[in-house]
Amino acid sequence: MAAKPVMINLTADELPTRWYNILPDLPEPLPPPQDPPEGPSRLEQLPNLLIGECLKQEFAEDRWIDIPPGLQELYLKAGRPRPLFRATELEKRLETPARIYYKAEFFSPTGSHKVNTALAQAYYAREQGFERMTTETGAGQWGTALAYGCALVGLKCTVFWVRAVHDWKTDRRRFMKMYGADVHASPSPLTKVGKELYSKNKKHPGSLGIAISEGLEDAGGDPNATYSLGSVLNHVLLHQTVIGLEAQKQFEKFGDYPDVVTSCLGGGSNFGGFALPFYGDALTKGKKVQFVAAQSEVAPNLQGEYRFDFADYAEITPLLKMYTLGHRVEMAPIKGDGLRYHGSSPIISLLRHHEKLDTVAYPADEKHVFERAGEFVRAEGFIPAPESAYGIAYAIDEALRCKESGEAKCIAVNVSGHGFLDIPGFAEVLGIK
Amino acid sequence: MAAKPVMINLTADELPTRWYNILPDLPEPLPPPQDPPEGPSRLEQLPNLLIGECLKQEFAEDRWIDIPPGLQELYLKAGRPRPLFRATELEKRLETPARIYYKAEFFSPTGSHKVNTALAQAYYAREQGFERMTTETGAGQWGTALAYGCALVGLKCTVFWVRAVHDWKTDRRRFMKMYGADVHASPSPLTKVGKELYSKNKKHPGSLGIAISEGLEDAGGDPNATYSLGSVLNHVLLHQTVIGLEAQKQFEKFGDYPDVVTSCLGGGSNFGGFALPFYGDALTKGKKVQFVAAQSEVAPNLQGEYRFDFADYAEITPLLKMYTLGHRVEMAPIKGDGLRYHGSSPIISLLRHHEKLDTVAYPADEKHVFERAGEFVRAEGFIPAPESAYGIAYAIDEALRCKESGEAKCIAVNVSGHGFLDIPGFAEVLGIK
Repeated sequence: MAAKPVMINLTADELPTRWYNILPDLPEPLPPPQDPPEGPSRLEQLPNLLIGECLKQEFAEDRWIDIPPGLQELYLKAGRPRPLFRATELEKRLETPARIYYKAEFFSPTGSHKVNTALAQAYYAREQGFERMTTETGAGQWGTALAYGCALVGLKCTVFWVRAVHDWKTDRRRFMKMYGADVHASPSPLTKVGKELYSKNKKHPGSLGIAISEGLEDAGGDPNATYSLGSVLNHVLLHQTVIGLEAQKQFEKFGDYPDVVTSCLGGGSNFGGFALPFYGDALTKGKKVQFVAAQSEVAPNLQGEYRFDFADYAEITPLLKMYTLGHRVEMAPIKGDGLRYHGSSPIISLLRHHEKLDTVAYPADEKHVFERAGEFVRAEGFIPAPESAYGIAYAIDEALRCKESGEAKCIAVNVSGHGFLDIPGFAEVLGIK
Repeated sequence: MAAKPVMINLTADELPTRWYNILPDLPEPLPPPQDPPEGPSRLEQLPNLLIGECLKQEFAEDRWIDIPPGLQELYLKAGRPRPLFRATELEKRLETPARIYYKAEFFSPTGSHKVNTALAQAYYAREQGFERMTTETGAGQWGTALAYGCALVGLKCTVFWVRAVHDWKTDRRRFMKMYGADVHASPSPLTKVGKELYSKNKKHPGSLGIAISEGLEDAGGDPNATYSLGSVLNHVLLHQTVIGLEAQKQFEKFGDYPDVVTSCLGGGSNFGGFALPFYGDALTKGKKVQFVAAQSEVAPNLQGEYRFDFADYAEITPLLKMYTLGHRVEMAPIKGDGLRYHGSSPIISLLRHHEKLDTVAYPADEKHVFERAGEFVRAEGFIPAPESAYGIAYAIDEALRCKESGEAKCIAVNVSGHGFLDIPGFAEVLGIK
């Protein structure tokens, strides 16, 4: 008797060598970004904001885009390809006829899928001759990922981190510094925009908008530096498709194919990275797949309006056509911090607009979501990031609906990160001492 | 141009299906455990202390021992096989002609290699009809691993945790509880031995010896419970050989073979698990390999005396022939807590006795070791456990000696765990705020 197939590992040879660009396969052309009616042109600034290769990818028309061999090497160094697991023990405990599969982005060196684009952007930045990258971070996952990417390719990294989070996420801050990053609470005294606020209030809690402005100003004033964004944009989702492309090969080896593809969705890079290759099958090969984005009620951006809006609070970016709650909406704090974003990436938004995406928003107390995460931890053993718990919750809820209906659906979820640095959040919500 | 080979993943099919038992290949028969001249017989108690299958394995004469298919499945669920990486970026930065490879036990669900024996023991305990397992833990890695193992196979788990550590390792404690384990600060009021101490001092700091006694008493009083040990014993090292067996296959695919095999050594389960299969090659196939155990100056047990000694402070175990500092030696606290053990497992000790093992002990301030870990983090991106940092430090030190001598050695190190829950320790020693 052999062991049951519960995990598929791909070999290094099987690492995807191309990303999937969904732009040519979308139901209609993606509305390009626009300038707002007033103020300076944001579009003209794009070449100064984005790495050259990323800007090219942002509007690329080719369905497949080569991953440079040097970057493939970095993906291998990050532990890609990552396993796809069948959640056999969870299925058994749920007594569901459904089959649940989960992709192990939690094996990321920094804790989340963000490394997939961080490595790509750091790689291209170095190729373009930059010596330093700047960015902002809110929850901290993106800042850590870029610190890591820069460390591996030998670039300096400057992170402007929303002070309200910077000040209490002690371990994540130290982690970024172990990678050699310069980490500043934002607003900081280092930039003009920061200094103005900082000089008035040294404990100013900051915001993502202010941190973005600081990162942009810092990079703008240094010809050897470039700025980097970790979600929303097309090229970021493109880089993340390595997740879904691996998963497709793994499903083939399992001899199965998902009926339901789900994961959490904040700005869209995790969901997109996992789902877009399966969308490709649905759009071009007629595969029947249900796509479901798991969100929080504090930021159900896919239930917002489909219109042009800024990607940032400070109105520095061009307008993007997307589902949005409004770029200055207030959002209550939750442990799944990475889901607190006002808009959904243009690609995901277009798919939603064409009714190719369902969405669920879980209550702000996170109790249901974290209890589901607890069930997952006890049956499968891996501790997910709070954000990832949303996708897991949906997968379990759906598997329990299958138990009622008797349907033997195949459910695929991407566990976008691990929760080792988020145990206090789980403990608080679940009442663990 | 293809990506350079920097990582070898094995597929699920390539998971080892047998463990390597070194007992028949040792230079002389392993001295069996003995009873002390006075007091009750410990040997007669062994069948009540150890799981039946583990006791059998403890004295097994077969070179290869089958891993049951159901347990193979659990290994797959834990993400085995794990990658072997070539540290190309680290080599480049060190400007060394040496080749450095590291095994990724840091992808463990709970944070260390301990899961390899925790799953095996939980599996066998369930097969034997037990409903609950008890154990002690010091640093906490073993307690987490057993909590995990029990959760996956559906057993209850009771952990007696040295109070001095239990009280401050808040996140690791909550982590164990997320797996559903009952976690008690030891001495606890739950056992006779604990109650006696606890009733006199509710803040008694405890010791590993007391915690062992509590675990044994608790299991002894419940016919449905069994006790479990996470290091030192032959069967524990046997279970851990899955690490080295995978690594051997991976080296074959890399087309390379280690000249130096190193890793940290506390009780010996990590070092043994990685090194024993390579010892097998050295002992039976004449392979020339240097083996080096990386230890702390606070517990350089391999520099102790080779004699019979108790495995525990409380003198509950039989006497084992091993290198020991004395079972009641005082050891200063260090961040690499898991290295603080007075003796080295009998198998490792015998190899040392036959001069088949070199040893290095790093200073108690851990500065050198953690600085080396920092170099590893920045070049390779993975944050090691404090214990694992010792092996990494030796690998780097050796690679730098190669730089001096011009030798192009192949150095293999097992990174036995990750450091996500140990960032405060690194930060303190490295002065990161």
